Amino acid sequence: MTEITNIPYFKIDKSEHHNVSARTGVIITSHGEIPTPAFFPVATQGTVKSLSSSDITDIGYKAFISNAYHLSLRPGIDSIKSLGGLHKFINWEGAIATDSGGFQIASLARNVQVSDEAVTFRSHVDGSLKHLSPETSIRIQEEMGADIIMAFDQPITYGAEKLDLKIGMQRTHDWLIRSITAHSGASLLYGIIQGGTYKDLRTESANFIDSVRGIQGIAIGGLSLGEPKSVLWDMVDVSTDLTSPNLPKHLLGVGSPEDLVEGVGKGIDTFDCVLPTRVARKGSLYTQFGRINVTNSKYRVSNEAISNTCACYTCKNYSLGYLNHLFRANELLAYRLGTIHNLSFIYRLMEDLRGSISSGTYIDFRNNFMDSYQSVDESVRTEQKRLWAINQDQKQQDFE
Amino acid sequence: MTEITNIPYFKIDKSEHHNVSARTGVIITSHGEIPTPAFFPVATQGTVKSLSSSDITDIGYKAFISNAYHLSLRPGIDSIKSLGGLHKFINWEGAIATDSGGFQIASLARNVQVSDEAVTFRSHVDGSLKHLSPETSIRIQEEMGADIIMAFDQPITYGAEKLDLKIGMQRTHDWLIRSITAHSGASLLYGIIQGGTYKDLRTESANFIDSVRGIQGIAIGGLSLGEPKSVLWDMVDVSTDLTSPNLPKHLLGVGSPEDLVEGVGKGIDTFDCVLPTRVARKGSLYTQFGRINVTNSKYRVSNEAISNTCACYTCKNYSLGYLNHLFRANELLAYRLGTIHNLSFIYRLMEDLRGSISSGTYIDFRNNFMDSYQSVDESVRTEQKRLWAINQDQKQQDFE
Repeated sequence: MTEITNIPYFKIDKSEHHNVSARTGVIITSHGEIPTPAFFPVATQGTVKSLSSSDITDIGYKAFISNAYHLSLRPGIDSIKSLGGLHKFINWEGAIATDSGGFQIASLARNVQVSDEAVTFRSHVDGSLKHLSPETSIRIQEEMGADIIMAFDQPITYGAEKLDLKIGMQRTHDWLIRSITAHSGASLLYGIIQGGTYKDLRTESANFIDSVRGIQGIAIGGLSLGEPKSVLWDMVDVSTDLTSPNLPKHLLGVGSPEDLVEGVGKGIDTFDCVLPTRVARKGSLYTQFGRINVTNSKYRVSNEAISNTCACYTCKNYSLGYLNHLFRANELLAYRLGTIHNLSFIYRLMEDLRGSISSGTYIDFRNNFMDSYQSVDESVRTEQKRLWAINQDQKQQDFE
Repeated sequence: MTEITNIPYFKIDKSEHHNVSARTGVIITSHGEIPTPAFFPVATQGTVKSLSSSDITDIGYKAFISNAYHLSLRPGIDSIKSLGGLHKFINWEGAIATDSGGFQIASLARNVQVSDEAVTFRSHVDGSLKHLSPETSIRIQEEMGADIIMAFDQPITYGAEKLDLKIGMQRTHDWLIRSITAHSGASLLYGIIQGGTYKDLRTESANFIDSVRGIQGIAIGGLSLGEPKSVLWDMVDVSTDLTSPNLPKHLLGVGSPEDLVEGVGKGIDTFDCVLPTRVARKGSLYTQFGRINVTNSKYRVSNEAISNTCACYTCKNYSLGYLNHLFRANELLAYRLGTIHNLSFIYRLMEDLRGSISSGTYIDFRNNFMDSYQSVDESVRTEQKRLWAINQDQKQQDFE
């Protein structure tokens, strides 16, 4: 078992109970402390879709993640700077993480040309020609005033040739060194482990990331893109086992309830994912027994709350029958009420996970949770993700 | 000047200062008191679009208006009854008015067949064949538990032949008698004055409505459908002059700020209109100087609030620059923040109007308001309304 040394911006309270790597801690940012393990809701364009910043505060979140690619295209960095930075723009006193935009360029932009120097692409918003390099990506994230920023990486689609994955990984490594050089130090910079689903590449990437100086956290990227769950967790294991336990670990793009519970057991400190909010807008709402689809006719005349153990604004005030009606009638309120509920569920899940680690009962908690929570069938999920990934029009509409 | 007699459910405090008919009062319902003059936000399908019931409470409103036609088609009266009635369904402790659905059948339903007995039509939701009569409309409104209900009427499109208007008006009168017979008495029933823009028909309709016993309020319908403003107010004058000052007067479908100020001076006690919320969702926001379009590029880097005299949630928390971004990025939050602002503006306007009447300064208030508030040009508005009225597809999408 590796000795843990606390660093100024990440204090680990407890770890590695009962042969699991689960640990609690606190990430200290210029905009407050984030108790970990934590989930970051996704506010791609500067708003968690359908919610205001005070809605996020009311649920309890201390941090969310925005996207440098999206915000640099619209409203643009100059606008955000003129408006006093991202915190003032969004009216949010908590912490803000930003993703560098590598993933969004790969999945959304058009005419993408990648060289060792930089990426050139056409904006999905207005078709204008844009360049993004490690240096400009770091500058953009810092100028926006983000507290936690991601190095600029090149994720490669799941299923790509190994050679392409290797080239993308090596470029990600080179770009990390340039990102570190460009980094001013006001924010916490996370390096990103890539390498697709090849254990040898992941090993090489994890070892590389672990060897560099000047990063304050480690992110694991290029996963949850359609690979089986067992492969996802193998890659996470490689990534966490080979990197210093002192640094906070962020798992990019993973956030289903069962994955959060599992990931925490593997020593992941923070997560972000569009899933809880995206499915909420389709009427798919979390309960301790799994997701329910509130548009189902069986809820039409139900006076029950989504969950009678949930104390969120939606559950305290509105019945399944009302939600069923709002979703069927395509009323805007449906999206907000669904999103508040799912994010409250995830917030409470992370709170419960922190409590279970502190009291040394994480394994019991995980077992109880997995026993009662019915996950969405893997084949269904993989197919949904595959269809989404190949449907460019849908991605333009529904990029989170 | 007619002597005012207070009736149990409508207490008039002051009236007819300085030769204007403006008056304050209180409508007493089984769900609280409504200080008048008041504006009722429109919650066609059981939600003011993008807002929850607590948002409406937070702004200050004591009542809103829903729609019997829409709610009877979806989720259906049986569902609402099973869920404990409209108040419980929406989780709203204040008063609820409902429109009978006559107007919506005329503007939304397909294959409408009107006989003296009833209306037969196909639902715009699922194409199913429906019938609505004065008796079923009253029953539906009462079974939902509405506090203020409208008699079933037959509005005729602006520009229709006078003979058609006359037939529609006479049918509305016959149906009022049937509505009164069907009315149980638990709610306040309003009769509706029709007659289009013909002074002789309006006179006949107003005299008829004034002559019947068993109504608790008077609504003025069939206006704001494309006619010039001067004609609108002439018709309102006829309608109010010829009916008892003791009854509360509701002006259906009128609610621009300048029309509210004007209408109050003509003795109108309550109003409802989709305008403030519909234009909010397009980024058209009220200020004391008129509507601004927040999507205009001049607001891109503005750190100001929409209005620095406004204390609404949106103005207290978010800049024009952020709103400009949200609207341009089609973010769902935009609709809620815009709607909260416009409804707060209208709420405060009604509060100010009540204050000015109480202190005998309504005329000054009106003159000051009209001097500073730049109305939307009448020709632009008329054209917008005409285009909307002929575009059936748009109406299906945007029926409020």
